[in-house]
Amino acid sequence: MADNRYNPTKALVADWNHLMRVFLRPEDDASRQTLIKYMEQMLFGLHDFLKKHVGITEAKSLKELSENFRNTLISEDPEKKLADVITCLIKEIAPHAVNVASPYFVGHMTSAIPFFMVHLKAIVSALNQNVVKVETSKVVSVVEKQVIAKIHNMIYRRGSLFYEEHVQNTETTLGVFTEGGTTANLTALWVARNAKFAPKEDFEGIEAEGIPAAFAAYGVDRCVILASRLAHYSVRKSTGVLGLGNNTVIPVDIDDDYRMDIGALKRVIREIRSGPQRTCILAIVGIAGATETGTIDPLSEISQVAHENGIHFHVDAAWGGPTLFSRQYRYLLDGIQYSDSVTIDGHKQFYMPMTCGMLYVRDPKLLDVIAYHSNYVNRLGSVDLGIRSLSGSREANSLVLDCALKIMGANGYALLINHGIETAAAFAEEIESRENFQLITPPVLNILTYRYCPAHLQEKLPAAGEEEKERINWHLNMLNRDLQRIQREAGNSFVSRTALRQNAFSPAEIVVLRSVIMNPMTGKSILKEILDEQEQIAEDHLTAKLPV
Amino acid sequence: MADNRYNPTKALVADWNHLMRVFLRPEDDASRQTLIKYMEQMLFGLHDFLKKHVGITEAKSLKELSENFRNTLISEDPEKKLADVITCLIKEIAPHAVNVASPYFVGHMTSAIPFFMVHLKAIVSALNQNVVKVETSKVVSVVEKQVIAKIHNMIYRRGSLFYEEHVQNTETTLGVFTEGGTTANLTALWVARNAKFAPKEDFEGIEAEGIPAAFAAYGVDRCVILASRLAHYSVRKSTGVLGLGNNTVIPVDIDDDYRMDIGALKRVIREIRSGPQRTCILAIVGIAGATETGTIDPLSEISQVAHENGIHFHVDAAWGGPTLFSRQYRYLLDGIQYSDSVTIDGHKQFYMPMTCGMLYVRDPKLLDVIAYHSNYVNRLGSVDLGIRSLSGSREANSLVLDCALKIMGANGYALLINHGIETAAAFAEEIESRENFQLITPPVLNILTYRYCPAHLQEKLPAAGEEEKERINWHLNMLNRDLQRIQREAGNSFVSRTALRQNAFSPAEIVVLRSVIMNPMTGKSILKEILDEQEQIAEDHLTAKLPV
Repeated sequence: MADNRYNPTKALVADWNHLMRVFLRPEDDASRQTLIKYMEQMLFGLHDFLKKHVGITEAKSLKELSENFRNTLISEDPEKKLADVITCLIKEIAPHAVNVASPYFVGHMTSAIPFFMVHLKAIVSALNQNVVKVETSKVVSVVEKQVIAKIHNMIYRRGSLFYEEHVQNTETTLGVFTEGGTTANLTALWVARNAKFAPKEDFEGIEAEGIPAAFAAYGVDRCVILASRLAHYSVRKSTGVLGLGNNTVIPVDIDDDYRMDIGALKRVIREIRSGPQRTCILAIVGIAGATETGTIDPLSEISQVAHENGIHFHVDAAWGGPTLFSRQYRYLLDGIQYSDSVTIDGHKQFYMPMTCGMLYVRDPKLLDVIAYHSNYVNRLGSVDLGIRSLSGSREANSLVLDCALKIMGANGYALLINHGIETAAAFAEEIESRENFQLITPPVLNILTYRYCPAHLQEKLPAAGEEEKERINWHLNMLNRDLQRIQREAGNSFVSRTALRQNAFSPAEIVVLRSVIMNPMTGKSILKEILDEQEQIAEDHLTAKLPV
Repeated sequence: MADNRYNPTKALVADWNHLMRVFLRPEDDASRQTLIKYMEQMLFGLHDFLKKHVGITEAKSLKELSENFRNTLISEDPEKKLADVITCLIKEIAPHAVNVASPYFVGHMTSAIPFFMVHLKAIVSALNQNVVKVETSKVVSVVEKQVIAKIHNMIYRRGSLFYEEHVQNTETTLGVFTEGGTTANLTALWVARNAKFAPKEDFEGIEAEGIPAAFAAYGVDRCVILASRLAHYSVRKSTGVLGLGNNTVIPVDIDDDYRMDIGALKRVIREIRSGPQRTCILAIVGIAGATETGTIDPLSEISQVAHENGIHFHVDAAWGGPTLFSRQYRYLLDGIQYSDSVTIDGHKQFYMPMTCGMLYVRDPKLLDVIAYHSNYVNRLGSVDLGIRSLSGSREANSLVLDCALKIMGANGYALLINHGIETAAAFAEEIESRENFQLITPPVLNILTYRYCPAHLQEKLPAAGEEEKERINWHLNMLNRDLQRIQREAGNSFVSRTALRQNAFSPAEIVVLRSVIMNPMTGKSILKEILDEQEQIAEDHLTAKLPV
């Protein structure tokens, strides 16, 4: 049997001596100093890199890079010491990673995070609690229940008596942490499915007996979920995972402001109800901050329709949820408090590190429909947070969020939200003031889309026939696709691109550039630079190919 | 619009000045020093705490603790500075968290982690890459493909030509990172389901059309999954989520060594095939390191049965996977290389921080059946790792694993594996040498179960009648349940408990104490102390209530 004695030996041989060194936290001053040196190297080496490279990445292509990552053998003995690993990360990985912290990186929902988040994440790692069960987390499970109640209170405002009763109640659940928005949406629809096909009489419930038996027990031919075309693809994915099938998702038309059209919603429900099939409408998904356009569905009106029809109303506020921090803008989410469930992401506008999702439910007993128990964890009546959760083992992200709320305060987050919304509005103005750009979706929150479209084509398009329109848009699509790619590859700044359907500019899909303003360092002057660069790229490389 | 100017003002008011301070990485020497101070406080404050408290937790009960965590309002302005938050974590949270790093904590699959893991996790947070797409990860996606290929190579050993072809191939996928073992198992069964009910003729596939349509298209009445009683509860949970229903899981009998009984497996398949229903056997799940007993199913023999019957063979090696590092013990997992898919957890025997799961597949095209695309991410043919994954946004855990493999080497991990297995064997001997303990499941890997059972009852039990046996076991169950609780609450050491069915000691469930030896600091003398304490607790508090 291996013994716990130290056997001094040469470095980079895996032996007990090596093992003790990497496992033990510092036992003496010398090793404390070494640890601090590593931490400094990490914090400041990375910092200096990120500071130097305001842009996105160095020029090397992914294909070239991948040539260096082809060895698939794990070395027998250690290859590197920690210090060398850190150096390698700073010198060889970081320069070819994406500098998402750059204020010029305005293309995705990933951005700079406050530096204290790194400290908090490190503390959570060092404590290494597993919140699946109280035996590996104790007080951290209690902290998690509290922080969930705090966010629940921000969303649902159910009054102090309600929170008194539920904040530390082991029999009820106000929400659950998930890996991200995708699994939060999946959990919401899982819950809606199980609640609809609950056990009754001889039927043990859909979770136990499966979909065919559930449909038979309830006399249902099919199940559908209603959501606008702008719903995140995780809604579709969830229906696939849940065995309902992607075709279950019925797209509801959107209005000119990219919000779900309430008339269309009612019409769809009427048609379904009067159709030949016995169809169960499982849920309506409202969006609070669409991934592509940042737009928000009319939550109040949807909630009324859902309520009148006895349908689960889920709000995907993965992006927009923290808008509730802002006194000025929280009205945009009005109606969210009438929903049955809400998805919010921690790694988006709570500015937490990757990744943290959350699902909140209005009814503290709703999550009971996904409860699982076993002999060794998640015992009946315990505080074990793994009982009602898609995940098993789970890190204590709640601790990061709890500390962040204390360090930032609601007002701190509100400043970020307001900055994003107001900077996006200013950016939209700037886009409209430039003759070769066209604003496609004006920002409601801090996301907007636009495209490069030379002035003469902007003039020509409205009067053009269908075929001519299609031809021009085809060229513009190619141009904007190339434009985004060239700018990204140049590495100074980054906007993303997507394709939007159903809008005033084209009946077909048009390619648009997409900006997400969440970095507080991203100000108007930076956005102007980004547009300048795009104009330059277009003139230098792309406009020559356009139709006159 | 908020402006990026600095407005000096008093502390703990959320203003731009505050915001800039928390967002910015250090710009000058003074703030560098502050940052280092925080890091020191965090690293060594926590360290000193964990060192002082070799035991589990302080005496305060969870109920008392929860009284301090009842406020559900987020404060408007910041409550605390980072330094105070860290101090609070060290002084108020850590003492009431669970010291999973203690060598006396041998009850769960959570343990000490090498300190470098905390550094690596901090680096990953600071880089904040999102590996769902290459536009927010670039080289990190390439690193992930490489480390997946390395582990795949360790499991499947498909030869250098195979890995040359696939390591950086954007059209194929050797595996995928998940939040944990639960979602890895879920993904495996999701893949098996979709592969079985693939699109054909007019049928678009189960992912698009759902289960009832899939059953109709394939002429199937029901679907089943075969697994031993010892399978992790996530297998059941997965069938619930996937819409197949928990009743889908058919338990296969285990033999006296707690391994799946191959005769029983063949019998179950024969019965299903000759039954009146048209039943599709979706998968056989083999376990490599059962959660409760650490036992390993006969993987080679199962793979043969699965192959002969055209059934997907999934191995849940969440726990046991890294045994492959050990030259001495990797034979225990023989047959894993013939499986169709394998779950391994990073936060278990790779000693990574919470949480990291992984799923590996033998066939690099198999994960195509769960592919999702959208307009803004996961475009066809891209390196975007989110295409074939349950998760959306995802942190770069692969970077932690990649660095850990370099720092530890295969041999470093092998030392840990060998130590666990050999220490558990020694512990089993020690248990058997004590007259008041009964070894229930001898260790195959580093997990064993036993119970306190006074010598006179050990003598009495074999000859006792059924009723008498039941009565004695009932008392022993109560005793062992109390014993585990009292020891846990005393806070010096921790073993877990579970209940095992079907064994030589009782036809009904018996409560057992469960030990997981993964901390390299846990040696034989510590385990003796734990048994001493248990004997003491039993004598002081519990044996008086036993039948004579």
